[in-house]
Amino acid sequence: MKTNLFFKKKNYIHLYDILKVIGLKPSQKNEKINDLRDLISAKKNDISFINNMKYLEQLKHSKAKYIITNKKFLNNLKNFNNLIPVDNVLKSVSDITNLFYPDSLDDAVDFNVKPPIIKKYPKIKFGKNVLIGKDVKIGKQSIIGHNTIIESNVIIGSNCIIGNNVLIKNSIIGKNVRILDGSVIGKKGFGFFPNYLSNNRYPHIGIVMIDDNVEIGCNNTIDRGSISNTEIGKNTYLDNQIHVAHNVKIGKNCIITGQVGFAGSSTIGNGVQIGGQAGISGHLKIGNNVKIGGGSGVVKNLPDNSKVMGYPAKDIRKFLKENK
Amino acid sequence: MKTNLFFKKKNYIHLYDILKVIGLKPSQKNEKINDLRDLISAKKNDISFINNMKYLEQLKHSKAKYIITNKKFLNNLKNFNNLIPVDNVLKSVSDITNLFYPDSLDDAVDFNVKPPIIKKYPKIKFGKNVLIGKDVKIGKQSIIGHNTIIESNVIIGSNCIIGNNVLIKNSIIGKNVRILDGSVIGKKGFGFFPNYLSNNRYPHIGIVMIDDNVEIGCNNTIDRGSISNTEIGKNTYLDNQIHVAHNVKIGKNCIITGQVGFAGSSTIGNGVQIGGQAGISGHLKIGNNVKIGGGSGVVKNLPDNSKVMGYPAKDIRKFLKENK
Amino acid sequence: MKTNLFFKKKNYIHLYDILKVIGLKPSQKNEKINDLRDLISAKKNDISFINNMKYLEQLKHSKAKYIITNKKFLNNLKNFNNLIPVDNVLKSVSDITNLFYPDSLDDAVDFNVKPPIIKKYPKIKFGKNVLIGKDVKIGKQSIIGHNTIIESNVIIGSNCIIGNNVLIKNSIIGKNVRILDGSVIGKKGFGFFPNYLSNNRYPHIGIVMIDDNVEIGCNNTIDRGSISNTEIGKNTYLDNQIHVAHNVKIGKNCIITGQVGFAGSSTIGNGVQIGGQAGISGHLKIGNNVKIGGGSGVVKNLPDNSKVMGYPAKDIRKFLKENK
Repeated sequence: MKTNLFFKKKNYIHLYDILKVIGLKPSQKNEKINDLRDLISAKKNDISFINNMKYLEQLKHSKAKYIITNKKFLNNLKNFNNLIPVDNVLKSVSDITNLFYPDSLDDAVDFNVKPPIIKKYPKIKFGKNVLIGKDVKIGKQSIIGHNTIIESNVIIGSNCIIGNNVLIKNSIIGKNVRILDGSVIGKKGFGFFPNYLSNNRYPHIGIVMIDDNVEIGCNNTIDRGSISNTEIGKNTYLDNQIHVAHNVKIGKNCIITGQVGFAGSSTIGNGVQIGGQAGISGHLKIGNNVKIGGGSGVVKNLPDNSKVMGYPAKDIRKFLKENK
Repeated sequence: MKTNLFFKKKNYIHLYDILKVIGLKPSQKNEKINDLRDLISAKKNDISFINNMKYLEQLKHSKAKYIITNKKFLNNLKNFNNLIPVDNVLKSVSDITNLFYPDSLDDAVDFNVKPPIIKKYPKIKFGKNVLIGKDVKIGKQSIIGHNTIIESNVIIGSNCIIGNNVLIKNSIIGKNVRILDGSVIGKKGFGFFPNYLSNNRYPHIGIVMIDDNVEIGCNNTIDRGSISNTEIGKNTYLDNQIHVAHNVKIGKNCIITGQVGFAGSSTIGNGVQIGGQAGISGHLKIGNNVKIGGGSGVVKNLPDNSKVMGYPAKDIRKFLKENK
Repeated sequence: MKTNLFFKKKNYIHLYDILKVIGLKPSQKNEKINDLRDLISAKKNDISFINNMKYLEQLKHSKAKYIITNKKFLNNLKNFNNLIPVDNVLKSVSDITNLFYPDSLDDAVDFNVKPPIIKKYPKIKFGKNVLIGKDVKIGKQSIIGHNTIIESNVIIGSNCIIGNNVLIKNSIIGKNVRILDGSVIGKKGFGFFPNYLSNNRYPHIGIVMIDDNVEIGCNNTIDRGSISNTEIGKNTYLDNQIHVAHNVKIGKNCIITGQVGFAGSSTIGNGVQIGGQAGISGHLKIGNNVKIGGGSGVVKNLPDNSKVMGYPAKDIRKFLKENK
């Protein structure tokens, strides 16, 4: 799935210009680079990056031609000969993203939205005061609630119910999905480089992908990805007031109860159940069929079928024994 | 109080059809059953259910003619001769609910809402872009904020202030109540039977009942009940970003601070004070005048006048001693 | 900065009337008092109050002519000869506030809002269905999203982006600020005196002050102050679903991640970083450059450069050692 269809992309950038923008001395070689992508989705003429040794396995299988990495990781990466070492990977990736996607820092209000033209959407039921952007696609039998805003280019499948006061941008939504009242889907994530006078925002060219039969409750916030996507798998249900940060990938058939929070870039398996108010730290891998008790704070990877509770989360039998 | 006035009900269902829909072999006896209700509110020709031995005391006093229960509870219920044992109580109750209330799975957008007709509401002050459903009753001197939606059949008392961007459905609201900006009151709860390809939603025929002098802060979500109601007692105040799940009953004169979450079906006494970000697990009974410290995770019943803190919550003196 | 510019103020109140309203026997001395202010901002003809010995240092430097205090503190305050001892400081302060600011209990819907008159705001881009109150000032190049409500007297600087479905009242907002979708800024705080039949609300004459280059995420709630202001310093970024209670003061260059909650009246230094779902209790002083781990519950003051985690929060090395 293309992650970048919502942002205008340059066909290619010369390696010369990439090296220059990140403060390196460019060679004369005028090679063309096609895109900036994450390790998994990068193709052979793309550039990618690694900023955390957790992703070493992905690096081994990446097809990317060049890899931005931190100078301090070089010792761990002696077998790789396509590395471009820098001081601050995220800053360099951000600068390169802006070369490929010059408009990607812009997360402003969509002024192309208008009341829906019924002729264009003959099988859709629209509430009052709905606003629809340019080139929005909505499948038949779907319902869009009152005061809801669907920004330009969003795709919504058939038989969906979108509630009232919902905002959807930069998202692709499957069939038979419900997104309930007050939720905000697809705004840019909370990513920036701290800067004393005025922080520099990180570009977010990823989108939110919500698969078939998903339910998203009320007043949720699901941010879109930075380079990769934020994803919610088939038949996963989210309760109210849940926060899903950028790049999080939640599997199929999960049950996420009220006020749970996911920090950025974690991957959640299939069939995972998470109790109310639990928090999942960033860059974690939670296996399939994991059960996480309410209020838990998960700070490390969890293998398949784990049952955990506590802050920090530990085996639930251990937690209950220590706390009886 | 009738819990079901928002949903069309069949006058009766034959016991024959009830047994059939839950997969049992019906006898020929063509008895009429009037309603499906919880143990407390069921009348003598109603059917009810017990799915948790915590409710044994309620069962003893229930007037219901028949009681759905789990086969595995039969040993504990030898003194009862009106039991209908099944494998999955909630699934059976859900199927029976759909017989009595055929439209109760529908939680879609209310397309009967329209801008208010001033002649119909002469003493009410409406903001801009307000939408009001059919047969809505609003008491005199009440104020309805901008962009707010009051769905069909909702009842609001006199001297209420409903803020901006509020959504209210399936609710009965007393006098002198404030519901502040962005809150969503009365949507169906987070209840369903997991199903590999597409979960089956649980019907929600309960409502939200908010008594006089209550204040509900901003961006709260208060879900309506499944079979019984979600209730908030007189003069109870809720701060911002609070989540109240289905069937929760909060007493009078409670103080609930920001970001607290209540899982389903718990009962909270009168005069209870709960600090910020605390969580209350499901199916608990919290006594009168209980004080729960901020951030606590309450996982068991608490007697009157308890003071607790911690995760899991324990006596506050013990918590402070262990953590000084 | 004036804290009270949003509320009509009496020029002065006689000391005689102040003493009378708080149930004391007034002397015949008909002195004029100019205002009720917090210890720091009170001028020489103002009255102020102290309700917590944490503020003793502020009392020593206060210019206030009279100080309301609790009778039980008198032993600790023997060096002060301008005290007015009462049984319930907050109740007395509330009653005096109502003398100076007779309309300050009113937090109702602003019925003066209207669609913006473009001639009045030539350099501003407005979305659809925007509502703007009386005497609102908005700086050039700012953008106001769809369905957003800016209540009367609010001041917004230049180059701001206010998202969709936002509500702003009683606030002064700097330049280059972003406030994203669904956030509610400036409603009265959660303050009242419990009263058996119907609680008495506490007046909120403070405002919300947001400095330049701040970003406020989606579905946040930032309440205005009671006597002093709620403040967010330059270049501080807040993620989604954050709750900031009345009178909280957050410094410059802070990073506050998703679902964090601040109880009332705490002061947060500059350069503070707070992980997701952490909670900060009321009336605390958090130093500069403090780092607070996700899920922490901070219940006491933290000196500059502290790194803490846990519930209750402790030194992060200690927390990690105890929980490895």
